[in-house]
Amino acid sequence: MPTAVEYARKEYPRFVEELKTLLRIPSVSTLPEHKGDVRRAAEALVAELKRIGMENVRLIEGAGHPLVYGDWLHADGKPTCLCYGHYDVQPPDPLDEWLSPPFEPTERDGNIYARGAVDDKGQMYMHVKALESLFAAHDGKLPLNIRVILEGEEEVGGESIAKFVREHPEQLKADFALVSDTEMFAPELPTVCVGLRGMIYTEIEARGAKTDLHSGIYGGAAPNPFVALAQIIAQLKDKDGQILIPGFYDRVQKPSPDELKAWRNLPFDEEYYRNTEVGSTQLTGEPGYSVIERTWARPTLDVHGMPGGFTGAGAKTVIPAKAVAKVSMRLVPDMEPQEAFAQYKSYVESLKPAGIELDVRLIHSGDPIVVGTDNAYIRAATVALKQVWNKETVFIRGGGSIPIVGDFERHLKIPTVLMGFGLPDDNLHAPNEKFHLANFYRGIESIITFFEEVGK
Amino acid sequence: MPTAVEYARKEYPRFVEELKTLLRIPSVSTLPEHKGDVRRAAEALVAELKRIGMENVRLIEGAGHPLVYGDWLHADGKPTCLCYGHYDVQPPDPLDEWLSPPFEPTERDGNIYARGAVDDKGQMYMHVKALESLFAAHDGKLPLNIRVILEGEEEVGGESIAKFVREHPEQLKADFALVSDTEMFAPELPTVCVGLRGMIYTEIEARGAKTDLHSGIYGGAAPNPFVALAQIIAQLKDKDGQILIPGFYDRVQKPSPDELKAWRNLPFDEEYYRNTEVGSTQLTGEPGYSVIERTWARPTLDVHGMPGGFTGAGAKTVIPAKAVAKVSMRLVPDMEPQEAFAQYKSYVESLKPAGIELDVRLIHSGDPIVVGTDNAYIRAATVALKQVWNKETVFIRGGGSIPIVGDFERHLKIPTVLMGFGLPDDNLHAPNEKFHLANFYRGIESIITFFEEVGK
Repeated sequence: MPTAVEYARKEYPRFVEELKTLLRIPSVSTLPEHKGDVRRAAEALVAELKRIGMENVRLIEGAGHPLVYGDWLHADGKPTCLCYGHYDVQPPDPLDEWLSPPFEPTERDGNIYARGAVDDKGQMYMHVKALESLFAAHDGKLPLNIRVILEGEEEVGGESIAKFVREHPEQLKADFALVSDTEMFAPELPTVCVGLRGMIYTEIEARGAKTDLHSGIYGGAAPNPFVALAQIIAQLKDKDGQILIPGFYDRVQKPSPDELKAWRNLPFDEEYYRNTEVGSTQLTGEPGYSVIERTWARPTLDVHGMPGGFTGAGAKTVIPAKAVAKVSMRLVPDMEPQEAFAQYKSYVESLKPAGIELDVRLIHSGDPIVVGTDNAYIRAATVALKQVWNKETVFIRGGGSIPIVGDFERHLKIPTVLMGFGLPDDNLHAPNEKFHLANFYRGIESIITFFEEVGK
Repeated sequence: MPTAVEYARKEYPRFVEELKTLLRIPSVSTLPEHKGDVRRAAEALVAELKRIGMENVRLIEGAGHPLVYGDWLHADGKPTCLCYGHYDVQPPDPLDEWLSPPFEPTERDGNIYARGAVDDKGQMYMHVKALESLFAAHDGKLPLNIRVILEGEEEVGGESIAKFVREHPEQLKADFALVSDTEMFAPELPTVCVGLRGMIYTEIEARGAKTDLHSGIYGGAAPNPFVALAQIIAQLKDKDGQILIPGFYDRVQKPSPDELKAWRNLPFDEEYYRNTEVGSTQLTGEPGYSVIERTWARPTLDVHGMPGGFTGAGAKTVIPAKAVAKVSMRLVPDMEPQEAFAQYKSYVESLKPAGIELDVRLIHSGDPIVVGTDNAYIRAATVALKQVWNKETVFIRGGGSIPIVGDFERHLKIPTVLMGFGLPDDNLHAPNEKFHLANFYRGIESIITFFEEVGK
């Protein structure tokens, strides 16, 4: 009988085809027109979990997109792992910048290109395929107990899973969680993520005149909502990127000297990062902090879009009645999303220009998290990663947000192992998102080995 | 035989139906998908000018939308009038704010609602119907010589007609021009417009990263084009509306004391204007200037839209690679568009935030104009208006721009009579554009009477 890793290696071509089938479903959770597709993805995962041997597999319905649940709890005396992933994806626009269609997975140069390839369908699917391989190699059994919970709202705030974790912690009882939705610090460098930023995603709606007006006839008398939003945004950050919201930095914790020292030892080439990853003439952000500190351990503020007015080609001389700015802030430990939003809202309202009415809305939020590294599961992860990658694990933080990790800690009282296999140039949330196939394969092997290590 | 006015009065129901047919053609000049519709409107006008008795009627083809030309030059010894109008219209969006569809003309409360109802199809059509009535009443003759020139690019900068006037002034030889594309200062108050603002319409494109980036992973290091544009826009005007572009006000001429005095005597209720016309909590603009001065005699700057990034419902955490701001400025005598654009461009470039590349583009421009009132045609206009409206004409300026008037003055060496019949609440460039039908009727009568007066 082959080992689980041997089984997986033999089946990789099929695993990739199955992943492609999943990637073809445009499960864009933020767009109402894709509601049916999101459900379709969930149903496909239900079928697959059943097929590989998971039990109690079902959809958990809530107000939004469904959760997918399944378990296998027959490894008496062994720890229970809660495998988390998400099957929803970001919108694919701008479409014209994709080299191959976002929902037609395409292999090029050892990568698979598609929206969701790495975030998170491909990474989530590694868990499923590791479990399949373990079932196959262990005569229909697993070396540890497993609960799988998959959500379809990660890209839109994750309300349903947060509610479920809060209200039914007993149904997700486990010893630790495994999340593969992060990246490796560099290719070939096994990485465990031990901290993530939180966020608040907001909209500022500015309203001036009661209807759109002709800028010739009314220019000089009617308030302009875009000018108002520009004035507000320009006062949210100074030119160096320092956020000007009063009290915003009060709870920010500095990373420990040990952590900072470890970060300085990471193989980071700022010029390569600027030129090849970001591709801008210059990097921005608060002076006095390294890129790593700025993106992992400092709060930031970004504007994502400003809908309203005339956005077509050519000219329309309108003073729009209203305009919106989509603004989000990333938060770091120990910032609190509700408090940060209150500080922001009150500051934005204090900047209200003459003639303008403002509506400052919170769209969604998530806590920043820091995960302890002193537990058996993190240690098992480093053992497994060493075995597969033949290198010592590095501990990093991430700039993105996976709010559910905070909920696992708060409501389930369990630590999370954030073991991800994305690469820094995977184009998350951008055109030409990809997943390196070698990482898909070695990710599966790492998870198999990790589960075997935990179950020893 | 009925007089021309009597003829018109009998035919008003038909005139309105004909106007509706013209309004149904969505001749939106700025949207490439409506190119065929713009041509269809031009062809309909060619057919109508031929039908009423105009001669040499034809399309004049250029790089963009065609011009419509026709003449009748058999009134020996009488002056020649160049009748100008435009048959293109603004885009109709936002569509959901229209009470009836923009291209399905609908009568309500004595008004006709449609995109282009007053700007400028309805007003341009008054000329055509005045000419038809005069032909009918004068046995197929007109009391003066007429050339008609209609354009389909007024809402997109008017390049084709400007080129034609510049290159073929002999083909438009006339003694004066008549333009009906302005409004009456108040209902029942016959108005001649003697000044208009010029404009420059621009785009600022800001580029940061080479592709859209995840704001969690890159927030704090990657430049954000929307934040950059906000910082720039916030420095274009101060909070009071004073434009901060160096040198921008240098050529601004104050209106004469007589003109200012006349403006103060106009029936203007600022509170009504704020509450009912604009509908904002407060009016904005430079302190120390009245609303009339601010909108007629001061340059202004507005932002019309900021395309780029994510503008859908919900959340997308993207740092867009680029964003655009559509910014226009209204200019007053003696400002020069090219010089103003150069000042603006150089100032905007001086504000370039770190990590951002800028492209500052001029989309189109037009000269500000002031028309002399001391000529026989203006005098004839006031006589005719007195006869129809039984009130003395008021002389106003307008805040909008009709650049072709400057070209008529420069290249044809003729004055223009700006006799318009729109009303201040006609929603130009906005949802629910309308034309008051009583003004359509009395506008036709005013133009008939004016032509008869000039031809005496």
